[in-house]
Amino acid sequence: MQVATDTRERIIAAAKTRFHSRSYADVGIKEICDSAEIQKGSFYHFFPSKRDLMLAVIEDFAHEWADGFVAEAFDPALPPMERLEYMIDAAYFWQKSVKEVHGRMSGCLFGNLALELSTQDEILRAKLMAVFNQAKTRFQEALDEAVAIGAIEPLDSELTAEAMLAYLEGMILLAKAQNNPEVLYRLGPAIQSIRIEKAGH
Amino acid sequence: MQVATDTRERIIAAAKTRFHSRSYADVGIKEICDSAEIQKGSFYHFFPSKRDLMLAVIEDFAHEWADGFVAEAFDPALPPMERLEYMIDAAYFWQKSVKEVHGRMSGCLFGNLALELSTQDEILRAKLMAVFNQAKTRFQEALDEAVAIGAIEPLDSELTAEAMLAYLEGMILLAKAQNNPEVLYRLGPAIQSIRIEKAGH
Repeated sequence: MQVATDTRERIIAAAKTRFHSRSYADVGIKEICDSAEIQKGSFYHFFPSKRDLMLAVIEDFAHEWADGFVAEAFDPALPPMERLEYMIDAAYFWQKSVKEVHGRMSGCLFGNLALELSTQDEILRAKLMAVFNQAKTRFQEALDEAVAIGAIEPLDSELTAEAMLAYLEGMILLAKAQNNPEVLYRLGPAIQSIRIEKAGH
Repeated sequence: MQVATDTRERIIAAAKTRFHSRSYADVGIKEICDSAEIQKGSFYHFFPSKRDLMLAVIEDFAHEWADGFVAEAFDPALPPMERLEYMIDAAYFWQKSVKEVHGRMSGCLFGNLALELSTQDEILRAKLMAVFNQAKTRFQEALDEAVAIGAIEPLDSELTAEAMLAYLEGMILLAKAQNNPEVLYRLGPAIQSIRIEKAGH
């Protein structure tokens, strides 16, 4: 059992960095097998298809973020609006460290895949949409709490959360196009200015 | 000469819709030649490489937008802040019409390619960055004019323009992940709330 778990994890680890730093289409199963030092037969034992591997990588990376930076940023001990700032900072420092090591900003894995695959694979699109919905919920909870304690004026927290997530993904996109994580540093604070009022207000 | 121009344009037309609705990696030169009804030798006469074709497609599409929706939206006859609204509306209706015809929102060609290729091809990345810089300039000019006529308070127009462009690209990304152009409709108006003050203010 241990060996099987190790093999599966080795495949996911080899695939994750490659999909993230290049693209889904650009990375083949053979390259992943070579890197994980396994045979193709063993690969297909764990993942019937490349799509199944991609689903596992998305799942794995979403958990890694949720348990790491996202949990730190959305720590209930922090004032709610500071959590948003922390989230942007985490994204900034993470992209900066990737660039320092690899010379290239890899951007957001979920954003990359959403633009590459949404027209081509309905199952992967739905999976990515679920990840974005989870992220949106974290933003929304912080906004609801900020309104409840009077830190900000009432607003449409669900729409504003979606707008903030759009802004975060857009900043990462422009930063990647410039290969410059400083875009996140200079544009990040403006996330706090985004506001969508409740309908009828 | 006319035949040569036609052939080149036929190749670009065949490539553009395919790259836009799928991805750079997913579309091969053979498929483009078949669709344009030309031989591979003829393709390489016009485009020494797939990258050269991609550069021509980006150029062509950037001109199409600049002369079309962008020129309409940033019409100097419109009040400056209404130009931003017009730009969002144009993106919304365009994505909506693509979805109605093809069943899928294809998103922004430049955003798609920036996330797919920025780590992999420095020349294509630089080309896409130039397109984003042109777009940013249009936003910035509108903001400068809005400040000049007193429609909005003074702000850092260059940074705010970049933030607004990030927001536009991020909205399109989330809309594509949901295959739902209505994301642009419901989040679009908040672009007006984005503000970055001048340093020291």
